[in-house]
Amino acid sequence: MTYSVQLLGISNAIVDVLAHVDQPFLDSIGAPIGSMTLIDEDQAHDIYARMGPATEMSGGSVANTIAGFANLGGSSAYIGKVRDDQLGGIFNHDMESLGINIRLDPAPGGAATARSHVLISEDGQRTMQTYLGACLGLSLADITGTTVGSPKALLLEGYVWDIEEGPALAKKAAEIARQNGTAVALSLSDSYCVERHRDSFENFVQNDADIVVADEDEIHVLLGTDSIEAAIAKLAAYDVLFAVTRSEKGSVIVHGDVTVEQVAAKVEDIIDTTGAGDAYAAGFLYGWVHDRPLTECAQYGTYCATKVIQQVGARIEKGLLDDFS
Amino acid sequence: MTYSVQLLGISNAIVDVLAHVDQPFLDSIGAPIGSMTLIDEDQAHDIYARMGPATEMSGGSVANTIAGFANLGGSSAYIGKVRDDQLGGIFNHDMESLGINIRLDPAPGGAATARSHVLISEDGQRTMQTYLGACLGLSLADITGTTVGSPKALLLEGYVWDIEEGPALAKKAAEIARQNGTAVALSLSDSYCVERHRDSFENFVQNDADIVVADEDEIHVLLGTDSIEAAIAKLAAYDVLFAVTRSEKGSVIVHGDVTVEQVAAKVEDIIDTTGAGDAYAAGFLYGWVHDRPLTECAQYGTYCATKVIQQVGARIEKGLLDDFS
Repeated sequence: MTYSVQLLGISNAIVDVLAHVDQPFLDSIGAPIGSMTLIDEDQAHDIYARMGPATEMSGGSVANTIAGFANLGGSSAYIGKVRDDQLGGIFNHDMESLGINIRLDPAPGGAATARSHVLISEDGQRTMQTYLGACLGLSLADITGTTVGSPKALLLEGYVWDIEEGPALAKKAAEIARQNGTAVALSLSDSYCVERHRDSFENFVQNDADIVVADEDEIHVLLGTDSIEAAIAKLAAYDVLFAVTRSEKGSVIVHGDVTVEQVAAKVEDIIDTTGAGDAYAAGFLYGWVHDRPLTECAQYGTYCATKVIQQVGARIEKGLLDDFS
Repeated sequence: MTYSVQLLGISNAIVDVLAHVDQPFLDSIGAPIGSMTLIDEDQAHDIYARMGPATEMSGGSVANTIAGFANLGGSSAYIGKVRDDQLGGIFNHDMESLGINIRLDPAPGGAATARSHVLISEDGQRTMQTYLGACLGLSLADITGTTVGSPKALLLEGYVWDIEEGPALAKKAAEIARQNGTAVALSLSDSYCVERHRDSFENFVQNDADIVVADEDEIHVLLGTDSIEAAIAKLAAYDVLFAVTRSEKGSVIVHGDVTVEQVAAKVEDIIDTTGAGDAYAAGFLYGWVHDRPLTECAQYGTYCATKVIQQVGARIEKGLLDDFS
């Protein structure tokens, strides 16, 4: 069977607002360095007013993955909610200009397009304060046979569970996928997100997911494990393909009793680790939709993640795998 | 006399939309590489629709200089016209977060905030397609004793002449400045801009300007000269302080029969030449408002320009001169 769309993303459509901050600024936020905290509109105005000059670029975890997948040459589509404001226009432009089919119209009213205030500290780590705005309006009604279609795979992100109808619309997307022979992939987003929705994620992984992409911390929170060996033993009991990233330790693919270990490439100069997991997912799923062996999928993922941490920004560039060898 | 504001900028308030493009894309534009072309709203929509994913950041030539000046520790204010849209909010935020006093309210209606589509070609050069939008609404009525105040210097950019009331409002600003003992500085923007407004610039330099910052090409178009020696001879006849930048050849300061030559620092790795002239102006004027000798003003300018071409982006960072030696 051939698919006109290989990968559909369903996620929070977010524009990143990036600025360098010092330690006192981070202390005043009170958020753990490297974490993602959800904030409301008033908090968003407050933090923006206190931030220095910023740069704006399209972001969002699974949106980054879909953009990366498109840049690798994959055909893709996207479901996420922006408003019909300038930032929404920027988000959709940046996706559409990569050939990604945008499935929803911008909301004509309501909250503004989502923004993540990305606070880059002196050591290069990023602390995110995210105002979900228009994303909160993504609803069950947006997930239909028409908007989902029948891609080879769809990819949801854990952050979707942070919006009111998120768990229900994820379930609905999975049901449509099941009817159409579409594989369901889930990216676990971050370990705090897994803590917030552990039971629901456990249920979704057990009953709906075919593929899960996550880092080791997220897997440990999901499973209650504290060693990679214990995690692998538990993952093997699911009928799910897991790709677990481990930073400089590489990644582990687990599918039942099949385990593939992939070492990380040695990187001398890490510029910016943002988007490493998203880029890994792009490469891994690019291999998967092209029916490549798991070892090769893992190599693609590692290659993309290695590249993205040596550049500023979370989205990998066009044709990255063209020179893959 | 002490001044609560040392430097007031009057210029086009623009948000840059930066994207990498290939040669066929540039060919399809038909604009000379490295040039700045003014486009209308339809052309702006067209070029944006054809551009790849972009990054947005506040720009504008003299706005970059004012931001740089503020980052050096100078007190500054700004007159420029944005709309009350998201990009206008971004522009004003990025200025205000540096302590710059914004003198005009955003326009509640009319054209959107200006955008410059900055097309970065494979060799790192930048071709700009600029939609002036809300800037076109900057008017004589915006230039008053209240909005101008009595800074130590005001800085106009040549691009202001591209808007309908630009020449008149520049003249009015210069008159207010004269009454208040404020020095009038002019940045010539680019050589195409000088071609567009040569006679008016000649008149302004002759009758209104105390300081002119320009690169050698702009000076040659203004004076009709073709060697630096010929230009210096002609500049010496004006009662104006000229700072002429010459890329890797350094800069020349001319004030009547005083000439100061400043060599450029050797730079191994030029990352991005955007904003070199704007940064030079920031450093030079920072020295000037602090009554430093011209040799030192030129050194500050060179230092700032040298730093800005070794980073991505046109605005120099906070406290740059703190480590000046």
